[in-house]
Amino acid sequence: MIYFDNSATTIPYPEVLRTYQEVASKIWGNPSSLHRLGSQAGQLLEASRQQIAALLAKQPNEIFFTSGGTEGDNWVLKGVAFEKQAYGNHVIVSDIEHPAVKESAKWLVSQGFEIDYAPVNKAGFVDLKALEQLIRPETILVSIMAVNNEIGAIQPIKAISDLLADRPTISFHVDAVQAIGKIPLEDYLTDRVDFATFSGHKFHAPRGVGFIYKKAGKRITPLLTGGGQESDLRSTTENLAAIAAMAKALRLVFDKDAANLSKIAAMKERLFNELSRYEDVILFSANQDFVPNIVTFGVKGVRGEVLVHAFEEHDIYISTTSACSSKAGKPAGTLISMGIPKSLAETAVRISLDDDNDMEQVQQFLTIFKEIYHKTSKVR
Amino acid sequence: MIYFDNSATTIPYPEVLRTYQEVASKIWGNPSSLHRLGSQAGQLLEASRQQIAALLAKQPNEIFFTSGGTEGDNWVLKGVAFEKQAYGNHVIVSDIEHPAVKESAKWLVSQGFEIDYAPVNKAGFVDLKALEQLIRPETILVSIMAVNNEIGAIQPIKAISDLLADRPTISFHVDAVQAIGKIPLEDYLTDRVDFATFSGHKFHAPRGVGFIYKKAGKRITPLLTGGGQESDLRSTTENLAAIAAMAKALRLVFDKDAANLSKIAAMKERLFNELSRYEDVILFSANQDFVPNIVTFGVKGVRGEVLVHAFEEHDIYISTTSACSSKAGKPAGTLISMGIPKSLAETAVRISLDDDNDMEQVQQFLTIFKEIYHKTSKVR
Ligand SMILES: Cc1ncc(COP(=O)(O)O)c(C=O)c1O
Ligand SMILES: Cc1ncc(COP(=O)(O)O)c(C=O)c1O
Repeated sequence: MIYFDNSATTIPYPEVLRTYQEVASKIWGNPSSLHRLGSQAGQLLEASRQQIAALLAKQPNEIFFTSGGTEGDNWVLKGVAFEKQAYGNHVIVSDIEHPAVKESAKWLVSQGFEIDYAPVNKAGFVDLKALEQLIRPETILVSIMAVNNEIGAIQPIKAISDLLADRPTISFHVDAVQAIGKIPLEDYLTDRVDFATFSGHKFHAPRGVGFIYKKAGKRITPLLTGGGQESDLRSTTENLAAIAAMAKALRLVFDKDAANLSKIAAMKERLFNELSRYEDVILFSANQDFVPNIVTFGVKGVRGEVLVHAFEEHDIYISTTSACSSKAGKPAGTLISMGIPKSLAETAVRISLDDDNDMEQVQQFLTIFKEIYHKTSKVR
Repeated sequence: MIYFDNSATTIPYPEVLRTYQEVASKIWGNPSSLHRLGSQAGQLLEASRQQIAALLAKQPNEIFFTSGGTEGDNWVLKGVAFEKQAYGNHVIVSDIEHPAVKESAKWLVSQGFEIDYAPVNKAGFVDLKALEQLIRPETILVSIMAVNNEIGAIQPIKAISDLLADRPTISFHVDAVQAIGKIPLEDYLTDRVDFATFSGHKFHAPRGVGFIYKKAGKRITPLLTGGGQESDLRSTTENLAAIAAMAKALRLVFDKDAANLSKIAAMKERLFNELSRYEDVILFSANQDFVPNIVTFGVKGVRGEVLVHAFEEHDIYISTTSACSSKAGKPAGTLISMGIPKSLAETAVRISLDDDNDMEQVQQFLTIFKEIYHKTSKVR
C-alpha cells in the first residue's frame, strides 16, 4: 500500500498508541477527583501540557486541550467574537480557510457579526494589501491559516503579524493544523499570534484530540461550559490517554524534524519535476513558499475522482484535495479563490507525503501515473 | 484497591480498549476520504452508529457522535436556543442540572435568552407543579436530567413527558449521562424526549467520546461547524476508534443489565442499611426512585473531603459528590437546591458502585468506615 493522503489523516504511530493504551488502562482516574487516582491523572495531564508547551516554546498556561482542529477553530472564532462583541462586530478570515473557520465565520453573521473574506492572489497567497484595506475600527479578529490544506501554500503569517503589530485590539488567530512539523515554528507562531489551532491526527497522534495556543492574558469565551476544566475555559472530563499520546506524538515529530523534512522535500521535488513533464498536467502547488509535503495537480479534462479511483486500483491512496470537500463532490475552494476556472479546479488531486513514505513509492506512483495518463488520453 | 467512584469515571473495559487499539491501528482512514481506506472507515462508523441506535431502540439517523457529555449538553442547550431564537427566548432547566447544562443556560443569558430554574423538592426531585408554572408561550426548551449525578435521584421524565405532551413547540432535552445502563430505557428515553445526552466514559468506554440522541426531524444549530461530518451537524474528522470502542462498551453494558443491576442494588442496600445505623450519619440518597449504584451520605460535623482522604489511606476511593465540584471545594449544588443547609451539605460524600465491585469490598468499606467514624468522633 502507498498512502499519499497524509494531509487527510496520518497513521497513528505505534508508540503513540502504546502510550494511549498504557494510560487508558492504568491512569484512568478523573483528574478532577480529590483522591490519589485523580491527582495522578492530573499530574500526567499537566506533564503533557508542559511537554507540548515546551516543544512550542510557549508556557503551559497557554495550552488548552480540545477534541481536534474543528473544535479549536470554532472555539477561537466564536469564543473571541462573543468575548469582544461589546467592542466590535467585524471579523476577517481569508477566503481559503478550512471550513472549520469559514463556516464558523458564516454562522457568526446570524448572530450580528460582519465577515469579510481576505482574497488570495493567483498563486494562493493572502493579498496583504487587500487584507489591510478590509481592516476597520470595529475589526476584532483576523483569522488566517498558516498552511493551506488543499495546495500547501504557506501564508505570510510574519508579514500579517507586522501588519497587525500596531493594531493590538485585533485578535490574530492562525489555523496551524497543516503547519506543525512541516515548517519552522517561527513562521506560524510569531509573537503577534494570539491564538493558534492544532489537531493531533494530522501528526500521528490519535483522532479526537487537539489543542489551541492562547497567548497568556488574551480573553476568550468558552465554547464548552460546565465543570470548569482547562482553567474553566473548556469543560469536560479530560481525555487523558489521548492527550498523553498526543504529547508523545508531538515529541516524536519534533525530534526528527530536520533530516526528515529534506527527505520529504526530495520526494516532492521528484514528483514535481516528473509530473511537470506531462503536457496535460497542471501543477497547482509550487516549491517556493509551499510546504514540502504537498503536491496538488490535475490532468486536463480528467476529474479528480477519476484519478483517485484509478490509483486506488493499484493500492495507492491520494485525495481530491481536502477530505471534507471530496465527498460533497465540490471542487477545491482554494483553487476557485485563486481564480482557477471550475472545470480546471475539478481536475485537482492532492498528494500529501509523510516521512513514512519513500522514494521507491514515489517511483511506483510515477510509473502508475504514466499508465493512467495514457489510458485517460482517450477521454481527454 | 476499592474503586467506589464510578460516577466520576469508570475503568475502561479491557475488551473495549482492544477494540480501540484494533481500529486505531488498522482502520485509521479518514471516513470522508473518497478512496477505499475512507469507505472502510465510513462503514465501521455507520455500523457503530447502527449498533448504538439498535441498543437504544432508535434509528441510526438519530445518533450523533460528540466528544462527551459536556459537548452534548452544550450543543443541545445552545444549538436548540440558537435554532429557535426567532420563536422564543425562554429556556427552563432544573436547578440540579450538571454544570454542563447549567452553565450553558447561564451563558445563554448573555445572548438575550431568559432562563428559569425548576426547583426540586426536599428529596431531590423536580417539582412538577413548579415546572409547569414556569412554562410560557416563549418557552423553547426544557432540559431535565434523567439521573442526578450527586445523589442518584431519578427524575420524573415520564411525568414531564406527559406535561409536555400537548406543548409540541417546546423541545425536551434529557441529560442521560448517569442513567444509561442504570435504569430502564423507557424511564428516560420516552417518545416525547427530543434530545438526550450520553457520555462514553461513564459506561466503560474511552474518555473523550459520547453521543446525543436527536429525534428525527428535530432541528438544531451545530456547535461545531466545518467539514460537514455527522450530516453537517457536528463537524470534525470522526474519532472512529473511540466510537467503535464506545459501541462495544454499550453492548457489553446492555448485555449484562439485569442480573448485574440486582447485584449492585444488593451492595447499595447493604451500605444503606449499615450506614443508617450510625447516629451521626445522614443519608442524602434513598432507595425508592434512586439509582441502584449511588449512595450519598455524610457524617455530621465532618467535611466530605476529610472522609475522602481518610478512605484513600486505605486504598478506597470515594468522592465528595461530583468530581467537578470537588476540586472547587464547593458543596454539592443538588443538596443546596434541596434546602439542605450548607454546613450539612459540606459533609456529603458519594459512593458510586459498579458491577466490578463486590460484597466483600462493601464489607471492607464498612469495616473501615467504623474506624473512621470513631476516630472522627473527637472532632465532631
Ligand atoms: C487547515 C485545517 N484546519 C482544520 C482542520 C480540522 O481538523 P479536525 O479534523 O481535527 O477537526 C483540518 C483538517 O481537516 C485542516 O486541514
Ligand atoms: C449528569 C452529567 N452530565 C454531564 C456530564 C459531563 O460529561 P463529560 O465528562 O463526558 O463531559 C457528567 C459527568 O461529569 C454528568 O454526570
